[in-house]
Amino acid sequence: MRHANIQLQADRRAEILDAAERCFIRSGFHQASMQEICAEAKMSPGNLYRYFPSKEAIIAGISERNRAEAAESFLAVQQAPDFFAGLAGLARHHLVERSAEEVGLCAEIMAESRRSPEIARIARDAERDIRGGIVAMLRRAQEAGEIDATLDLDAVARVLMVLGDGISWRRTADPEFDSEKVLPLVLQMIGCLLGHPKRGEGSP
Amino acid sequence: MRHANIQLQADRRAEILDAAERCFIRSGFHQASMQEICAEAKMSPGNLYRYFPSKEAIIAGISERNRAEAAESFLAVQQAPDFFAGLAGLARHHLVERSAEEVGLCAEIMAESRRSPEIARIARDAERDIRGGIVAMLRRAQEAGEIDATLDLDAVARVLMVLGDGISWRRTADPEFDSEKVLPLVLQMIGCLLGHPKRGEGSP
Repeated sequence: MRHANIQLQADRRAEILDAAERCFIRSGFHQASMQEICAEAKMSPGNLYRYFPSKEAIIAGISERNRAEAAESFLAVQQAPDFFAGLAGLARHHLVERSAEEVGLCAEIMAESRRSPEIARIARDAERDIRGGIVAMLRRAQEAGEIDATLDLDAVARVLMVLGDGISWRRTADPEFDSEKVLPLVLQMIGCLLGHPKRGEGSP
Repeated sequence: MRHANIQLQADRRAEILDAAERCFIRSGFHQASMQEICAEAKMSPGNLYRYFPSKEAIIAGISERNRAEAAESFLAVQQAPDFFAGLAGLARHHLVERSAEEVGLCAEIMAESRRSPEIARIARDAERDIRGGIVAMLRRAQEAGEIDATLDLDAVARVLMVLGDGISWRRTADPEFDSEKVLPLVLQMIGCLLGHPKRGEGSP
């Protein structure tokens, strides 16, 4: 395939995933139909099915895209001059700047994964991938002497995911929840956990 | 109404709520029908509707029951000889001992509250009630000199809810997640946040 064609395919896939996300957010994952997604993406079913043969394939595509974005975030932390500054930036991006809709979509997928083994498998693979990325990020910080060298990184990664999920969930559950207000306390706790309490406390 | 009748009514309501929880866990909140709940509770629709006229009324009943249980948990912390020991007990009860099914039910209700204003209102009221209970519990610990006197208790309560939700969510999302393993780290972070890092670190 020529380069232009590959790019066109990738663009088309991204457009379909965007349209599907809007449908899932609007109607719920379980309720949204392939017809609704076709209409939102302004494509015929025959055409759309060439890219994604099922709703599960679309969810797999969304999950893959999220994982690629997460990998980029971890790389950005690695490239930050200071681990804690990088982590604060990642937390802000992931927990404050993402739209409430994106966050709500996670609740949809979670509810659905309780019933669909295929969705559960996709979610589990994404989990493992993201946890691996967090562990690698923490290991680099350990090697650079920026965090406590004795930490159980797998357990710490799980705690960081607990905090990320918890904030996302709060944003969905509580309209008065202000992630901006809570973030400094959360970063302080993380600083304490990672063995740099002063660094954590110093965050604004 | 005579006392025996009141007790009978209360028992019947509790049985219906138990049956409804089983249905919601099995079929999903949106998919479970009043017919299914009647069958599970072994009651005729006419009889069940005398107790709960709608699925929303059932959810309100489940929410009310959860709030009463939460109020009892906060009272238990108050009665514990030491605030941090009490808090560790509450965390264990709420985050380790509750069944995965009970936790999964929260994901169901959350997904549904994005679409139903009635469910959203019930969830919001429960939120506010539980947050109020946490703030009152923290205030008593502050007055007793057990935690930092300068803390913004409303923000801290939100962070504690973030941790609780996050752990619940992890349990649903990740079959390898061991809340037992993560709990000490979480209690350590909480100890640090509340101004008693040594106490937190000492937890097993």
